[in-house]
Amino acid sequence: MSGATAKSERTRAHVREVAIRMLRDVGYERTTMRAIAVEAGVSTGNAYYHFPSKDALVQELYLDVQREHATLAAPVLAAGGTLAERVRGVWGASVDAFAPFHAFGAEFVSVAIRPGSDASPFSGASTGAREQSRELFEEVVAGAEPAVPARLRADLPELLWLAQLGVTLFWVHDTSPGFARTRRLVAGGSGLVGNVVRLARLPVARGVVDDALRLVRSVHPDVVGDRA
Amino acid sequence: MSGATAKSERTRAHVREVAIRMLRDVGYERTTMRAIAVEAGVSTGNAYYHFPSKDALVQELYLDVQREHATLAAPVLAAGGTLAERVRGVWGASVDAFAPFHAFGAEFVSVAIRPGSDASPFSGASTGAREQSRELFEEVVAGAEPAVPARLRADLPELLWLAQLGVTLFWVHDTSPGFARTRRLVAGGSGLVGNVVRLARLPVARGVVDDALRLVRSVHPDVVGDRA
Repeated sequence: MSGATAKSERTRAHVREVAIRMLRDVGYERTTMRAIAVEAGVSTGNAYYHFPSKDALVQELYLDVQREHATLAAPVLAAGGTLAERVRGVWGASVDAFAPFHAFGAEFVSVAIRPGSDASPFSGASTGAREQSRELFEEVVAGAEPAVPARLRADLPELLWLAQLGVTLFWVHDTSPGFARTRRLVAGGSGLVGNVVRLARLPVARGVVDDALRLVRSVHPDVVGDRA
Repeated sequence: MSGATAKSERTRAHVREVAIRMLRDVGYERTTMRAIAVEAGVSTGNAYYHFPSKDALVQELYLDVQREHATLAAPVLAAGGTLAERVRGVWGASVDAFAPFHAFGAEFVSVAIRPGSDASPFSGASTGAREQSRELFEEVVAGAEPAVPARLRADLPELLWLAQLGVTLFWVHDTSPGFARTRRLVAGGSGLVGNVVRLARLPVARGVVDDALRLVRSVHPDVVGDRA
């Protein structure tokens, strides 16, 4: 690596780090590209050279938080355990990984929830962070003991990922100390997932489970070429 | 009623009507109290005399939309029918009642989702519209044939109301013609509600249903005096 390239990469890493810290500490609205450049001690043009927009830096934040989530979830995923235990561990790890961003979580949600927003977890721009998050739930399902019924194995990771978005929406509004309310939701919700999957093994419940899966598939925003 | 009172009430009704039309046509951000006053041909002071804030006018809009929802849902509620049919009818009526506001639905959601927002469906300010909406689901459950199991009757209206918030969140992001995707969610989701409630009658499913109800009660934001 040439000296110039190494310097450029250091600058990029520095701008990235400053932006993530500012998003966390002063929020989305006040973290402008200009403010990031000032804080990082580079020209605004230089900041734009490395990142085309503020939203690109929001994606870097997502990737950081996602990496932290994966790190905190790793021991849970390595430990085996029942489906409920694994779901609880991974959802719980997300509460810990997101915690430093709670003050501005609501602002992020408010930005991300606008249709077409790059900050949306469903956006094209969020593909990297989304895929990493989904992979955690693939691992949750693949490693569960006893094994998840074959009929559920394909859809369950996606459902658990969607449910985690719901948990996050709940957490953003949670003002209880230590997010006790969200942790109760995680504990109860993961237990419920385990029980529902157990119930889904019974012939009497199969029709309902199949209907539910069909419904999710038919309305899922990722259904390709189907906007009608 | 004195002439002055009648005139004041006419002014109030006019300001209210102008504000709702503006919220629908130009959105939340651009509908300021000043712009409402100009459009209504009254002084800003006069507009404030009738409504303390823009958010008070958003509540008037909620009440209007809620009244329209109740009107559209009335034939469904009068017709008897199964739980699934009634849920489908009332959720479907909400899509019709909300339709004129779709263009700014996302903006409203983005405002309403901020913690502490008066526009939130959970806020103190929204109590009137919320209670009216919940009552629809009380009627859905009370009039279903066959009757909803007694163990579910107390909690189900609230759950159906929460699910309707989910449907609305989905609808805001729905760009399919005629909201076909949301209508598919309503059709499939209401069928699923019917099937799950049927399943809940079976002894084998009772424990799971009871756990689910306990969980909802324990994390519900309305749980009084419990912020821990």
